[in-house]
Amino acid sequence: MRDAYHEELDSIGEGLVEMARLVGSAIGRATTAMLDADLKLAETVIAADQKVDDLQHELEARAIALLARQQPVATDLRIVVTSLRMSADLERSGDLAQHVAKLARLRFPERAVPHDLHATILEMGQLAQRLMAKAAEVIITKDVDLAMQLEQDDDEMDLLHRTLFQHLMDEKWKHGIETAVDVTLLGRYYERYADHAVAVAKRVVYLVTGEHADDVQAASATPSPAGEGA
Amino acid sequence: MRDAYHEELDSIGEGLVEMARLVGSAIGRATTAMLDADLKLAETVIAADQKVDDLQHELEARAIALLARQQPVATDLRIVVTSLRMSADLERSGDLAQHVAKLARLRFPERAVPHDLHATILEMGQLAQRLMAKAAEVIITKDVDLAMQLEQDDDEMDLLHRTLFQHLMDEKWKHGIETAVDVTLLGRYYERYADHAVAVAKRVVYLVTGEHADDVQAASATPSPAGEGA
Repeated sequence: MRDAYHEELDSIGEGLVEMARLVGSAIGRATTAMLDADLKLAETVIAADQKVDDLQHELEARAIALLARQQPVATDLRIVVTSLRMSADLERSGDLAQHVAKLARLRFPERAVPHDLHATILEMGQLAQRLMAKAAEVIITKDVDLAMQLEQDDDEMDLLHRTLFQHLMDEKWKHGIETAVDVTLLGRYYERYADHAVAVAKRVVYLVTGEHADDVQAASATPSPAGEGA
Repeated sequence: MRDAYHEELDSIGEGLVEMARLVGSAIGRATTAMLDADLKLAETVIAADQKVDDLQHELEARAIALLARQQPVATDLRIVVTSLRMSADLERSGDLAQHVAKLARLRFPERAVPHDLHATILEMGQLAQRLMAKAAEVIITKDVDLAMQLEQDDDEMDLLHRTLFQHLMDEKWKHGIETAVDVTLLGRYYERYADHAVAVAKRVVYLVTGEHADDVQAASATPSPAGEGA
């Protein structure tokens, strides 16, 4: 009985890793779809989010069944409750990747991102994907040091976000309001995506160290750099 | 024993209502601070969010203690797990109200919102506050019909958001890029705030009817109207 139980716990962890892989792939492909104005690729990202949602529902149902059937306490209880939160973070990351893909679709056959911001957006997309890959690895390895690295990577994302805003605020901006709006939202999507990846890693830290997830809250509340401090 | 248990469950519900009242007040005051360029008021909103965060931590700790001590099953288990999710929605709404206040502070002594958008932003703020008041009432009364009303109110929010974007895209827009960026982010904050209020109400519906919260997911994934469909 006890063994089947731990198998079930492990398989919830595997489900989380699978979700992280799906949403990591989604943000990478959404970014490519956006930069190349590739409608077909955008459509596949949009459609694929259903699988992430389904996985979340399945994981939640299994976590709740586990709580009811096995009534775990202490560490195991913490694992199950934290898994529920991680699956919510991952599901939301999937939505954000989908938002990027939908913006690509909306502007097709135009490109939403002007040429001089191409490199910055590409970097944001790649960094987001790397953050999620690391979050998945943290779930697997429970490596606290690796989890801490995600915070530094997130500082890099903030820097990129700030670069984006500097472009927007530059007096030489010549791409008009619609593009400014698109770029503002895109920046926000990548930033929030990164926040969720960091939150996932920090929840693992909480599980391993038992330290309260205060910082997790702080991370998920990262302000938009509409002007830093905002 | 059993009575103390149900008292504890009730008091978690009361904590959620308290959180909803705090974040409802926060979005109202943040909107006023923004429209009046009232720095002092903005500062009180920013500081007050700590209380919301504290309440969430407290509620989570109590919910987890309840799971460990009482090992609820069936409906009671569903209530506790759903409460955890509602407290996360409410905490995030508080962050969004704080973002609005921080934008007011950032632009002070200027006003972030140009005069011709004043009425729209005021309406968005008031609607957000009403939505959260209704969500609190839904938690108290478990009134499924009232919960359903929130979806209609949310349609109104989408309409207001679209109005905002029409202003932005209007060729006569003369407020420059910085204001366009501010207004874009503000619109997103109000829209997400409303999504969370709707999600809270729908989670109550799920508790009462036992119907799966698929729609809740859909609501929380409401796309930004950067262009509807985005």
